[in-house]
Amino acid sequence: MSLYNFAAGPAMLAPSVKKALAAMILDWRGTGLSITEVPHRDKLFGDFLLELQGKVRRLLGIDERYEVLFLMGGARLLFALIAEQFLKEKAAYAVTGYWSALAARTAERYGQVQTIEMIGKPQLPIPQDIQADYLFVCSNETIGGVQSTTWPVTDLPLVVDASSDIFSHRFDMRNVALLMAGAQKNAGIAGVSIVVVRKDWLEKAKIAEPLLSFREHARAGSLLVTPPALALGALDATLSWIEACGGVEYFEKLNEEKASLIYKSIDESQGFYQNTVEPSARSKMNVVFSLRDDALTQAFLQGAEQRGLLNLKGHRSAGAIRASIYNAMPLEGVQALCEWMVTFQKQNEKE
Amino acid sequence: MSLYNFAAGPAMLAPSVKKALAAMILDWRGTGLSITEVPHRDKLFGDFLLELQGKVRRLLGIDERYEVLFLMGGARLLFALIAEQFLKEKAAYAVTGYWSALAARTAERYGQVQTIEMIGKPQLPIPQDIQADYLFVCSNETIGGVQSTTWPVTDLPLVVDASSDIFSHRFDMRNVALLMAGAQKNAGIAGVSIVVVRKDWLEKAKIAEPLLSFREHARAGSLLVTPPALALGALDATLSWIEACGGVEYFEKLNEEKASLIYKSIDESQGFYQNTVEPSARSKMNVVFSLRDDALTQAFLQGAEQRGLLNLKGHRSAGAIRASIYNAMPLEGVQALCEWMVTFQKQNEKE
Repeated sequence: MSLYNFAAGPAMLAPSVKKALAAMILDWRGTGLSITEVPHRDKLFGDFLLELQGKVRRLLGIDERYEVLFLMGGARLLFALIAEQFLKEKAAYAVTGYWSALAARTAERYGQVQTIEMIGKPQLPIPQDIQADYLFVCSNETIGGVQSTTWPVTDLPLVVDASSDIFSHRFDMRNVALLMAGAQKNAGIAGVSIVVVRKDWLEKAKIAEPLLSFREHARAGSLLVTPPALALGALDATLSWIEACGGVEYFEKLNEEKASLIYKSIDESQGFYQNTVEPSARSKMNVVFSLRDDALTQAFLQGAEQRGLLNLKGHRSAGAIRASIYNAMPLEGVQALCEWMVTFQKQNEKE
Repeated sequence: MSLYNFAAGPAMLAPSVKKALAAMILDWRGTGLSITEVPHRDKLFGDFLLELQGKVRRLLGIDERYEVLFLMGGARLLFALIAEQFLKEKAAYAVTGYWSALAARTAERYGQVQTIEMIGKPQLPIPQDIQADYLFVCSNETIGGVQSTTWPVTDLPLVVDASSDIFSHRFDMRNVALLMAGAQKNAGIAGVSIVVVRKDWLEKAKIAEPLLSFREHARAGSLLVTPPALALGALDATLSWIEACGGVEYFEKLNEEKASLIYKSIDESQGFYQNTVEPSARSKMNVVFSLRDDALTQAFLQGAEQRGLLNLKGHRSAGAIRASIYNAMPLEGVQALCEWMVTFQKQNEKE
């Protein structure tokens, strides 16, 4: 039986990425050593990091005006570090769901925060008279299942949390001052995060503890401290796999197809399955739905698991069902889920 | 040809640990999923973390009075976080080499620091009249090749940086309030650090950014954020391997034997090889030596590499030769190094 892992993150890895990861533990690039054993001051490792930065640049469509940093710690730590280093007078936060709300609350510890309430509605226009050091947006809210592939119209520098949809479609980087992402959804495994920051903006960062300073990490080329080599190897294997498949354009199309299949199953279920997100904001990464009869949720999840459809349980703060269908989820997994949705509905409407 | 990796860190992994690590990427504990894919809120993962804490406790000989935390980021970040959270009035730092000096400089950003100069001489007595929140010691200095397996006589709470010799011998934990270690030498791979802290002392920690707060991480059982599962898997595989070999007592004896062989080769070389560390402070983890004729260093390193003896070059701040012989370095690797030392000396004294 094929297993399809619908976990929201840490998320499914492509089988070829897993194989590459296992291989680089045993022998990395013909060194006879594990990638985790090679001294990080060696040219071989330095070159690897430069190549990896190049892959990130290609897949995001950015040039040398941006620094590409690889840091330890995940998105939540970055919420704090961004506010600490870039919030000078006031920052604006577009609150579209759980994660952007958490980012705003985190930033409040470092200065004045103006929140713009747009829960579930990332396409709402934002006020044009806001004065702020930056506008924070979360491109995809994994818990609410809400995504926006366009940014609010604004002249403010944008800070984008792309943790859950980086590399899943082409990003508009024009107003982006900083884009951040934990790796464990579309970019490998937990243990490393990616920060892409425009160099002229980085120069304005406030002074921080050097080990937490974006500027210091940039100066050291992400080698200020011993890097998490295996998480970087997983990132590299993932980006190589994305490029080999045809780049973000390939996944943009595939993700559109995958998401459409599930939303169609929901919409055609005559209310048996329900998703309340505005159609234009429906996430292509996390499809959240509930059953009209919540008492059936457990049976739905159990039957899914028996069919190899794993980790469909919704977030502890939201409940119900969540199908996370990042890049690595193949079309077959989504088809199997949709078949189960139809089967389960038939079984339970008959009775 | 067998490869022996004498890198100081990231360091050599035992072959069986590498195999276990590669295996857990493909299928972890029969789940059919990679360890990096399993949701960290699952009972399976929670149980794994509890087991891992238990292994750390057994190998350090500590009980439930200590919290065992697993955090992202390495030793240098911990230098900052410890000072930020535990330095209230003044802290004392025993400066035995590069790393303890760096820890002291880092702490100066957070409060008053009294340094006790004992470079290369960790056995010096420390003044008994020091008032301080804690005394920081680094149990093994990887660059100077200086180690102490006993602590200064003091009533102060001890903070021990054991990054490079944790699990290599039995530690005296009696006065230890906090023991910290990056994983990438004796405890797996870069990307996770271990913090063992006495619960009553932890309660006295100052308030810090929650994502960097030892107390918050303790409350969350090291699951405040998505944990670096693969680095934790490497730690687990390493600790299982240590226990299967016979525990820290086995490695204490083996490390003693390995280090003695190299120091003997140095001492019997009639000055061809030189180590200037006081015999009682000679590190069993990092044997640092130079050649009387420094012009021969490159040839020594090249010949070593041809024999599969890798990464013997000393730290960029120290130069010469450094043989890092952590737990995972087998006796055979050390024997091969000693043979090469004798051969190289013969070749170069003949001419």
